[in-house]
Amino acid sequence: MTSSERPHVLIVGAGFGGLYAAKALKNAPVRITVIDRRNHHLFQPLLYQVATAGLSPGDIAYPIRAVLGRQKNVRVLLAEAVGVDLASRKVKLRDGEISYDYLILSPGVRHAYFGHNDWERWAPGLKTLEDALEIRRRILLAFERAEREPEEAPRHALLTFVVVGGGPTGVELAGAIAEISRQVMVRDFRAIDPREARIVLIEGGPRILPTYPEDLSTKAEAQLKRLGVEVWTNSVVTSVDASGVVVAGQKLRSATTLWAAGVEASPLARSLGVQLDRAGRVIVAPDLTVAGHPEAFVIGDLAVLGDKDGKPLPGVAPVAIQQGRHAARNILRATSRIPPEPFHYLDRGSLATIGRAAAVADFGWIKFSGFFAWLSWLFIHIFFLIGFRNRFIVIFEWAWAYFTYQRAARLITGNINGQPSDSEE
Amino acid sequence: MTSSERPHVLIVGAGFGGLYAAKALKNAPVRITVIDRRNHHLFQPLLYQVATAGLSPGDIAYPIRAVLGRQKNVRVLLAEAVGVDLASRKVKLRDGEISYDYLILSPGVRHAYFGHNDWERWAPGLKTLEDALEIRRRILLAFERAEREPEEAPRHALLTFVVVGGGPTGVELAGAIAEISRQVMVRDFRAIDPREARIVLIEGGPRILPTYPEDLSTKAEAQLKRLGVEVWTNSVVTSVDASGVVVAGQKLRSATTLWAAGVEASPLARSLGVQLDRAGRVIVAPDLTVAGHPEAFVIGDLAVLGDKDGKPLPGVAPVAIQQGRHAARNILRATSRIPPEPFHYLDRGSLATIGRAAAVADFGWIKFSGFFAWLSWLFIHIFFLIGFRNRFIVIFEWAWAYFTYQRAARLITGNINGQPSDSEE
Repeated sequence: MTSSERPHVLIVGAGFGGLYAAKALKNAPVRITVIDRRNHHLFQPLLYQVATAGLSPGDIAYPIRAVLGRQKNVRVLLAEAVGVDLASRKVKLRDGEISYDYLILSPGVRHAYFGHNDWERWAPGLKTLEDALEIRRRILLAFERAEREPEEAPRHALLTFVVVGGGPTGVELAGAIAEISRQVMVRDFRAIDPREARIVLIEGGPRILPTYPEDLSTKAEAQLKRLGVEVWTNSVVTSVDASGVVVAGQKLRSATTLWAAGVEASPLARSLGVQLDRAGRVIVAPDLTVAGHPEAFVIGDLAVLGDKDGKPLPGVAPVAIQQGRHAARNILRATSRIPPEPFHYLDRGSLATIGRAAAVADFGWIKFSGFFAWLSWLFIHIFFLIGFRNRFIVIFEWAWAYFTYQRAARLITGNINGQPSDSEE
Repeated sequence: MTSSERPHVLIVGAGFGGLYAAKALKNAPVRITVIDRRNHHLFQPLLYQVATAGLSPGDIAYPIRAVLGRQKNVRVLLAEAVGVDLASRKVKLRDGEISYDYLILSPGVRHAYFGHNDWERWAPGLKTLEDALEIRRRILLAFERAEREPEEAPRHALLTFVVVGGGPTGVELAGAIAEISRQVMVRDFRAIDPREARIVLIEGGPRILPTYPEDLSTKAEAQLKRLGVEVWTNSVVTSVDASGVVVAGQKLRSATTLWAAGVEASPLARSLGVQLDRAGRVIVAPDLTVAGHPEAFVIGDLAVLGDKDGKPLPGVAPVAIQQGRHAARNILRATSRIPPEPFHYLDRGSLATIGRAAAVADFGWIKFSGFFAWLSWLFIHIFFLIGFRNRFIVIFEWAWAYFTYQRAARLITGNINGQPSDSEE
């Protein structure tokens, strides 16, 4: 079989799902093309640390070419997919098109504003490195502006940070901002005391970390409060603008609002012409394919699939990784004319970190919180980081931060003069 | 003497000059205000390594507050100076003004296009972190686009990199691009061979590194050629656009042109109403003050002063550091009613690096090139980096790059879709 006769596997998106699918096909008799809008794989579970000046972008991102460069049956293209034509087996790019024999669609999701897209300028979300740098810029700039603000009311607003959404990202962001203000910046200012910063985490439902067991939600809330974070549950945000947010008719004045409250599918999903859920995600068959198209797989955050109890699988890295590998195996089966197998998620547990030596862990057979949960969180994240260099640097940065209470990446880059509002006016 | 009676020293710009001036006044009976448009001090000698994916922004930048946070007589303000009123001893800010008893003006310089400011969009210069990230984006994107370009002529243009200006920055950029293409990216692409990239360094004068002894220029040129860089001397660029540059009536097609060919003073200089040189820099008295204003010092790249032979001092970090300390000492003398002393530059030598194990060194009493010049360059740059953490990380990154031939920071961020031209159209 010559290489041009080998079936062509097209993987759209080099997140966890796409990357692990490509790796699982390493020795397979297929030609693989990986396309991504970015030249790097992003380790999203640590993105909040870039947003809060703990890590640099280069520590959690790795060039896709460098990951797959030695895998001879892969080529990597920097390209943006804008649509899928399932009937003719083609993916439309912003500039051109690529045909495939097998498709693995793993473009991920974006944050969503429940129909209020105008809120985005006042309350950025956290999905890309650019998002993280913008959030870092806003947080650091708020302290800088507070130092120069002579009036009390606007100074209070500058020192108030609102995080909307009590899932893992919101909890991690709120905890990290509290750490910066309470521990890192203590000696840096003259006119303000950064410890006076007010951090409010707003969750619409009755408890934070709603996908975790209830006792861990309670423990996470206690740990956040110990760090100085106000946790508002059963609180729905009805308005966001430059001056802050409105919750239950009450105005909360804040110069910095961050959004961690929901996701929305890639527009690619709509182009499939198949059944979608309310967030626009693709409802897939048990073998991860699209109805009627055994050659087209959808995996990761974009796919909707229930676990053995019918509960939808969460949008986390382990699900994407296992689905990527499973899709790869089903493609191998198809090339050998073996029927596909259904996907079963092996849930090894969930972890969320709140701050220095504070986290909650749920491994199914055991639940715990505090220092040991935090250590587990550290080791598991280091283990899944790609590349020895990145692991080494992140271990060093964390050890450095732990012992010195300093944060390395406290840089304001990009638009330096503007208030958040200036940059988009 | 109460603190409000203490004279107020205003330092504009926290580059090498401003920062070392503030540190030299550590135990002085003065109140110090340091203002900068940025929240970080930038180690400019290594900026070209950020532009060529060897280091991350956080490795060579350090928050000014973190450097000066423990120095009790200093406050740091994020603010942009837009003018100086020498008569009333006030600095105008973009938002407000600050009065002073003593002024140290060290805002630095920008790159200049000799009246062709429209060239900037096609040929970015290298002075800020944002500049460096934009250059990194263009270099990496050119390889990505070449991988997808089926036609030969545009592919050649994408793999041609032009660096205009044969000073240290131009030499370092050209050498680093050659290294990336020859050594780092070798296995990463399928359709192109990055080793075919053409790198052209264009210098208007008769030799590169014109401020160095002539034999070192010759050696630097030989080392660049060994890396695969074409060195064009006596070559003046007369046009720059999206398709490349024109040199002596001949078109050189290139998708990526970088500018390292000249500097221009900060507009602040004009507001002084004193004598400027052709590049708009301030001609200072031997004690570093402005004529008629013994309380106003100008230091660093913005100041023009001759050495003992009347030759103007170069715009390098050691000059700025020594001038910063000297201005601080003259202010201390003034507060004790002791007359100021003239500044004398102690030239400890010059170093320029060409690439892996390649550099030239001129320490006055000894000149050498090659591996040992490169080692000297490494140690001196590590020594002057601020902060243990940054030193450690940079040593690690360099060792890692040396032994693995990899570069950590190969990320394309910012505008990902665009050609260089798109972003500003």
